Amino acid sequence: MTAAAADLARARLIPARHGIAARLKAGETVTVVNTHGKQVVDTWAFNARDVSEFMSMEHSRASMLRLIPRVGDTLTTNRRRAILTLVADTTPGIHDTLIAACDIHRYRQLGAAGHHDNCTQNLAQALEAVGLSVAVTPAPLNLFMNVPVTGNGELDFQSPVSEAGQYVALRAEMDLVIVFSACPQDMVPVNDMHPTDAHFLIA
Amino acid sequence: MTAAAADLARARLIPARHGIAARLKAGETVTVVNTHGKQVVDTWAFNARDVSEFMSMEHSRASMLRLIPRVGDTLTTNRRRAILTLVADTTPGIHDTLIAACDIHRYRQLGAAGHHDNCTQNLAQALEAVGLSVAVTPAPLNLFMNVPVTGNGELDFQSPVSEAGQYVALRAEMDLVIVFSACPQDMVPVNDMHPTDAHFLIA
Repeated sequence: MTAAAADLARARLIPARHGIAARLKAGETVTVVNTHGKQVVDTWAFNARDVSEFMSMEHSRASMLRLIPRVGDTLTTNRRRAILTLVADTTPGIHDTLIAACDIHRYRQLGAAGHHDNCTQNLAQALEAVGLSVAVTPAPLNLFMNVPVTGNGELDFQSPVSEAGQYVALRAEMDLVIVFSACPQDMVPVNDMHPTDAHFLIA
Repeated sequence: MTAAAADLARARLIPARHGIAARLKAGETVTVVNTHGKQVVDTWAFNARDVSEFMSMEHSRASMLRLIPRVGDTLTTNRRRAILTLVADTTPGIHDTLIAACDIHRYRQLGAAGHHDNCTQNLAQALEAVGLSVAVTPAPLNLFMNVPVTGNGELDFQSPVSEAGQYVALRAEMDLVIVFSACPQDMVPVNDMHPTDAHFLIA
């Protein structure tokens, strides 16, 4: 049994297609487990004292000077302060910082009728459950998401390359609220067409 | 004399280091001229009826499936609606959608003391001048900005490859407020270390 598998017994569930918020104190680490593999987990982080300060992909890229964070890289807020550091990654290191959270408009365009679960509403509902709200949906850190940049700067939505039990660990650099959404996308192959649960563990 | 040079006589100024807002009706086209070359123009667009809907780089990349828009590509809002289409580009086609607007925090980190002009405040002031405000600074379309993605997804800040008089034209797909900021960055080479004026023309 791997360390990640052993830890799952005390991990918290990110239910398939849904979101959940949790609080992290500065110095704590959250491990996000791709329990079944091939599942994208949209991830946001907000300053616990002022949610108008949040992890920002466009600010993080400017300081990391990379499209995808690697172990040792620190993600920053829209005020250029450190918020999360990637401290472990047992996946092949393929994540995404380029693509917006899915929303009801996206599913309409793909042909969905009626309600479709989506990460934008999952963020709002997860924050509401802990008494918070935000004016705008920041671009998420899309853990495990595989959107390669091909020739001439073209993008492609592909199935994740992570496997069951592989995980990423993020250390909080300030007191923060983290939100995870197990992406419900089942109309393009970002979750291998089959959204599943994931788990997380705070230590 | 080129067409762009002829048009400059009736173009509006984007003063070096400052921002300006203008209204576009659906169907109108704005031509953004890199008057002296090597100057980045941060560009935002907001639905004229509801500025909580705005041009979004992370949503646009998902629909364009490209890091950098090309002639014919349409940029979309955070509600996945068409807002601007790139209809002409006489530059080599190098722009940026990855990097946040500069702000006072960025200049502090680079070693600036006291006030430094910045695109984030330029956006706020330009909107204020037309009676508007926004809660969050969206990631801008950085016209003429040269941030290549090198091997392994690494980013580099380089001098623009556009030349004096080259321009981009954008067609409004809804009634909108557009904001341009002639980027005041003079501490990294995104403006070739020498911020200058630019111009725009609505037709």
